[in-house]
Amino acid sequence: MKITFCCTDIKPGPWIEDLRAALPDAEVSVWQPGDPQADYALVWAPPQQFMDEQPGLKAMFNMGAGVDGLLRLKLPAGVPVVRIEDAGMAVQMAEYVCHAVIRHFRELDVYEEDMARGAWTFRKPRVRSDFPVGVMGLGVLGQRVAQALAHFEFPVHGWSRSPRQQGGVTTYSGAQGLEEFLGASRVLVNLLPLTDETRDILNARTFSQLQAGAYVINVARGAHLVEQDLLDQIDAGHVAGATLDVFRTEPLPADHAFRRHPRIRLTPHASARTLHHDCLAQITGKIAALERGEALTGVVEGARGY
Amino acid sequence: MKITFCCTDIKPGPWIEDLRAALPDAEVSVWQPGDPQADYALVWAPPQQFMDEQPGLKAMFNMGAGVDGLLRLKLPAGVPVVRIEDAGMAVQMAEYVCHAVIRHFRELDVYEEDMARGAWTFRKPRVRSDFPVGVMGLGVLGQRVAQALAHFEFPVHGWSRSPRQQGGVTTYSGAQGLEEFLGASRVLVNLLPLTDETRDILNARTFSQLQAGAYVINVARGAHLVEQDLLDQIDAGHVAGATLDVFRTEPLPADHAFRRHPRIRLTPHASARTLHHDCLAQITGKIAALERGEALTGVVEGARGY
Repeated sequence: MKITFCCTDIKPGPWIEDLRAALPDAEVSVWQPGDPQADYALVWAPPQQFMDEQPGLKAMFNMGAGVDGLLRLKLPAGVPVVRIEDAGMAVQMAEYVCHAVIRHFRELDVYEEDMARGAWTFRKPRVRSDFPVGVMGLGVLGQRVAQALAHFEFPVHGWSRSPRQQGGVTTYSGAQGLEEFLGASRVLVNLLPLTDETRDILNARTFSQLQAGAYVINVARGAHLVEQDLLDQIDAGHVAGATLDVFRTEPLPADHAFRRHPRIRLTPHASARTLHHDCLAQITGKIAALERGEALTGVVEGARGY
Repeated sequence: MKITFCCTDIKPGPWIEDLRAALPDAEVSVWQPGDPQADYALVWAPPQQFMDEQPGLKAMFNMGAGVDGLLRLKLPAGVPVVRIEDAGMAVQMAEYVCHAVIRHFRELDVYEEDMARGAWTFRKPRVRSDFPVGVMGLGVLGQRVAQALAHFEFPVHGWSRSPRQQGGVTTYSGAQGLEEFLGASRVLVNLLPLTDETRDILNARTFSQLQAGAYVINVARGAHLVEQDLLDQIDAGHVAGATLDVFRTEPLPADHAFRRHPRIRLTPHASARTLHHDCLAQITGKIAALERGEALTGVVEGARGY
C-alpha cells in the first residue's frame, strides 16, 4: 500500500514517521510532482497538480474539519474525500466557545480591570435567561458546543440547513427558520461550513435580528463574516462585542481594524487545532476499514460542500 | 410567623418585599436590637447581640454557602443553622473555574497578546493529559466543578475529608490521601470549607507536592492560602500562576502584591454570587418544610464547621 502526504503548512516529519509505525506494511512518502500513483493521500491545501496526477486514489484524507479549500480545486472523479470528524477538535471548540461566553456573561474582563487598578467593586449579577446562545451549524462541532453551553444552563438555540433534534437545544432550520432563531439569540456562535449559501451570512441584516446587546463568536471561516458590518454594529451599540478566531484574510493584517479593538477578542485560527495523535488514529483506522471493504463516516458530499 | 432579616452588606429592601410576597401570612422585618423573638432569621455576618437576643429561633438561614463567619460567634443552643446549598451558585462556580482552567490550558492570554501586537503565531498545542486537575472539597460546589471539568475531558482528581465517590473523578480522602492527590494534580482548585483543619492548607508544602508547572485556583476562602508562599512558588517557577477570587483581607488592599502581578488573575470574591430569586425560593421552601415538620438538608453540623 502506498500513502502520500501533500500538506501545505504542516511539517511532514512526524506524520511520515508515525504513519510508518502505525502501518508498517505501507510505503509512506511526501508527495513530489511525477510520483507514481498512491492508494491513499493525506492532504491540506494541495496544489491542482496533485489532483491531476493522482486520479486513482482510493481515498483522500483532508487534515481538518473544513474542506472548503479542497473543494475549490478540480478533484479526480470518484475519489472519496474524507474529512477529520473530531480528532480532539470538538472538545477544543467547546472549550473555546464556553470560555468566550462565560467571560462575556460574567463580565470577567471588567472585574479584572477593576482589580488591576486597585478597586473592589461588584456589578449586579447578570441573569442567565437574558443570555440565550444561538449556535449556527449542528454538525459534530456545533452539537458538542451546544451540549457544553447547555451544561452551564444557558438557554441554547441551534440552527442548521436541514432539521435536526438535540436534547436541551431548541432547533430551527432552513432559510425560513433563520429569523426566528436569530430573534431568540443574544450570543451568536458560528460553526457553519463555508458554502455559497453561508458565505457572508454574518452581516448587518443578521446582526440586526439578534437580541439587543448581542455578542458574536466566529469560529468557522472568515468569509462567513462581513467584517465592516460587525464594526458598524458595535459602533451603533446593538452588538456589545465579539470573539473572532477566523478572518477573511489570514494571517490577519497587522493594521486591521480588529487588532486592538477594545470590544473584539482575537486568536489566530487556534480555536480547534488538529491534534496529531487523535488525527493519526482516525486516519489509520479509516484506511484499515477501507481495506476491509467497510463504509466510512466523514465522507464529504461534493454537492453540499461539507 | 415572624421572620427577621439581619444581614451585613446586603440591602434589605428587595428581600423584605419578596419575602412578604412569598409568605403573605408572615410578619417580616429588619432586625433591630430589642426586637421581640422571631421564628426564623435570614443572617449574614450578624452581630453577637443578635444571637444573644434571639435564642428561640426555629432556624437561622445563612445567606451563602460558607458559614465560617457565623461559627465564630456564640450561637444560641439548639437553633439549626441552614446554609444556602446551591441557589445558582454551583453552576457559577463551575463557570468560573472552567473559564480559568481553559484560559490557562489553552494559553489564550498569550494568543491575545500576540494578536494585539500584530503577530500571528502558533504554539504547540498542550496535551490534556498533561493537565490533570485536582479539586479539593467535594461538597455541592466541588462536585459540580469536578463534573464540569470532566465534561471538557480533563483528568479530574478529587480530595475530601471523608471518602466520596463521583463518576469520572479519581477520589482521595483524609490526611493520608492528600500527598497522593497533590502529586496527581497539576491544576489545583480549592473549594474546601474553612475550618481549623483547612486553614493555611494552600502553603509551600502543598504547592511543592503538585506537579511542576502547577496552577492554583482559590475560590473558597482567603484564609486557606498562605499568600507569601504562593508568591514564592511563582518566583521559583514551580507554580506557573494563579486565579484568585478570595483573600485573607477583603477588600484586597489596593497596594497588595497580588494586584497587577503578571501571573495572577484576580476577581473580587465574585466567583459565585448569591442570586436573589434562587436563594429566596430555597429559603421560603425550607420554611414551609419546617412548618410541615419535615427534615431539612443543608443544616450545618457545628462540630465539623460546615
